[in-house]
Amino acid sequence: MPMAYLDHAATTPMLPEALDAYVATAREVGNASSLHAPGRMARRRVEEARERVAAALGCRPSEVIFTAGGTESDNLAVKGLFWARRAADPVRRRVIASSVEHHAVLDAVRWLETHEDAEVSWLPVDHRGAVPVEALREALELHADETGLVTVMWANNEVGTLQPVAEAAAVTAGYGIPLHTDAVQAVGQVPVDFAASGTTALTVSGHKLGGPTGVGALVLARDTACTPLLHGGGQERDVRSGTIDVAGVTAFAVATEIAVKHQAEYALRVGALRAELVAGVLAAVPGAVLNGDPEQRLPGNAHFSFPGCEGDALLLLLDAQGIACSTGSACSAGVAQPSHVLLAMGADDHRARGSLRFTLGHTSTPDDVAEVVAALPAAVERAQRAGALRAAR
Amino acid sequence: MPMAYLDHAATTPMLPEALDAYVATAREVGNASSLHAPGRMARRRVEEARERVAAALGCRPSEVIFTAGGTESDNLAVKGLFWARRAADPVRRRVIASSVEHHAVLDAVRWLETHEDAEVSWLPVDHRGAVPVEALREALELHADETGLVTVMWANNEVGTLQPVAEAAAVTAGYGIPLHTDAVQAVGQVPVDFAASGTTALTVSGHKLGGPTGVGALVLARDTACTPLLHGGGQERDVRSGTIDVAGVTAFAVATEIAVKHQAEYALRVGALRAELVAGVLAAVPGAVLNGDPEQRLPGNAHFSFPGCEGDALLLLLDAQGIACSTGSACSAGVAQPSHVLLAMGADDHRARGSLRFTLGHTSTPDDVAEVVAALPAAVERAQRAGALRAAR
Repeated sequence: MPMAYLDHAATTPMLPEALDAYVATAREVGNASSLHAPGRMARRRVEEARERVAAALGCRPSEVIFTAGGTESDNLAVKGLFWARRAADPVRRRVIASSVEHHAVLDAVRWLETHEDAEVSWLPVDHRGAVPVEALREALELHADETGLVTVMWANNEVGTLQPVAEAAAVTAGYGIPLHTDAVQAVGQVPVDFAASGTTALTVSGHKLGGPTGVGALVLARDTACTPLLHGGGQERDVRSGTIDVAGVTAFAVATEIAVKHQAEYALRVGALRAELVAGVLAAVPGAVLNGDPEQRLPGNAHFSFPGCEGDALLLLLDAQGIACSTGSACSAGVAQPSHVLLAMGADDHRARGSLRFTLGHTSTPDDVAEVVAALPAAVERAQRAGALRAAR
Repeated sequence: MPMAYLDHAATTPMLPEALDAYVATAREVGNASSLHAPGRMARRRVEEARERVAAALGCRPSEVIFTAGGTESDNLAVKGLFWARRAADPVRRRVIASSVEHHAVLDAVRWLETHEDAEVSWLPVDHRGAVPVEALREALELHADETGLVTVMWANNEVGTLQPVAEAAAVTAGYGIPLHTDAVQAVGQVPVDFAASGTTALTVSGHKLGGPTGVGALVLARDTACTPLLHGGGQERDVRSGTIDVAGVTAFAVATEIAVKHQAEYALRVGALRAELVAGVLAAVPGAVLNGDPEQRLPGNAHFSFPGCEGDALLLLLDAQGIACSTGSACSAGVAQPSHVLLAMGADDHRARGSLRFTLGHTSTPDDVAEVVAALPAAVERAQRAGALRAAR
């Protein structure tokens, strides 16, 4: 069965260039911490990869800390900054976080709350999913002296709304408080420049931009103290121990470079496909609601609510037609909970449950869009009938 | 220049079968947490990999937690078991650890000591590098009620000595205290059966057995509480969040299966090469001392002290002859500290610094051995002259 894959935000196919780089490097041998010739060659590959990632993200090579992916980078930033700041000043045990963060940030913050006695201020979002900078300003006016860090994602993974990260960074900088941003969904989709953003720490993940799964980075501004999550050999400036995956970081660097280099034309092409998808769905499905910010958004994300439907039912009906999409974050898929993102945006439980996310990417075609638009009306009708039956019982 | 690679304990070449499996899987798309068809296919690959790893290691599939490698598995076991046990009983804040652990365990334990108010009992080793079980028994007689976990590695990464893990497990089981073992160097080298060992948690790493770097597992006995290091999507039984590296775990499973299947013949072949190497070096280099246990040991490890030499100088002289070896753990290479393992074995600072580790592996040949035996006498002589010069100044 031909498959229309519209779940690029969950994971996107690895670029052939990245896979080739992985294979070529994996055929060499050498631990980048070893002193002999093969070790030095491995080290050179790693430092070349670091330079390429840094150039693509607008940071210094020394600010790139390779990790096992977005979840590790988020956990390292949130917990590591919290611990380091609290160690320097025991009063600083507050985390200020947006209420629409990915679970890797959300659950790390909650763990600090239950396990490390952290206080948390959750920043609200407006109905489009954006954090009002005013809310951050107010939280800091109240709590700046006791705040260890602020974390606000670059772009939301469910509804695609961009956050005002640079404005937030200007506010936190005024208080000397580090700002972490989860940019997993943003890199390659919209311009992301670490230095220009003014943030302190930035999370990026390989498999969301055409690189390998299990590889990512935390960009950490120099002279920023961050307590390690993983102790050991002292790799990555002692912030992240573990044998460096030479093939993985090489492939990750290749993918990051390509994704960033082609970002503008990608956004145009994929943005046009998205516009087609949105227009087609809204015309074909009565009552469909488009979520997220109409302008400040990721180019490839289209997120809808379909009244009277269960998102999971709809997902499976489309899957049966060869269309792959998502009810929200893949990381919370299978868990029968309404999306915390939609609830924070003011949606009721019903609307939050009846939502679908379509995300386009580098392999997307007009045919993918046409298939969705063709299949969706019947699927929605069927899911609505099932929903009405359930409600009647 | 032809290279004689004798540093397989730092990292060993990826098996072609594992790399092929990586490539085939990486060409598919799908997040194993997604509900649609490509997601379910990815999930199937992951669960097949889990079953293969479990069969190879003698555990249940549900006991395999995929991680980013040995360092993460060690940190997760040490910190996760500590936190979970202390949460259940605040008195349990002691860790009992062998004094010859890899830095991933050692530094995790030390962090618990300085950061989480842990008490630590370091178990001594005898002159061959083995923990006397009696020492563990004594520590538990004193401290059982306040002990959260015990951690004793399966095989030492520097001198190759096997630890009495099963005997240790019998002792800890009597107290109901979990025993973690770092088996990174052991799997594929000696028989490792999780269930038969009686341990509670076991660390394994991909790139030490012919699999990819950046992939590993913690085998965690069922019903064992372990606080996560990485919070988020709730993958891996909620113990380890993060998008599963489908290609990586598939390649890891292939490598683990092959390494374990061929372990016996591997040990014979590589053990014979090691015997040649040991005999050749001891005959060719006056004063060379063989370290570690002569019997209870890894088949491919040969660790020597060369009196009057700096290990680093010797390493670089051999490197210039196209021979790759190590002064100890690659993870602490570049750090000018004498090995904590040799010091724990009773070596003086001098002997600890003048040591070299040769580790053979699946690609090793008699020629590799011959090259070392041919090159070593001149290198030692030269390093000794340099050492004498330094001492005279």
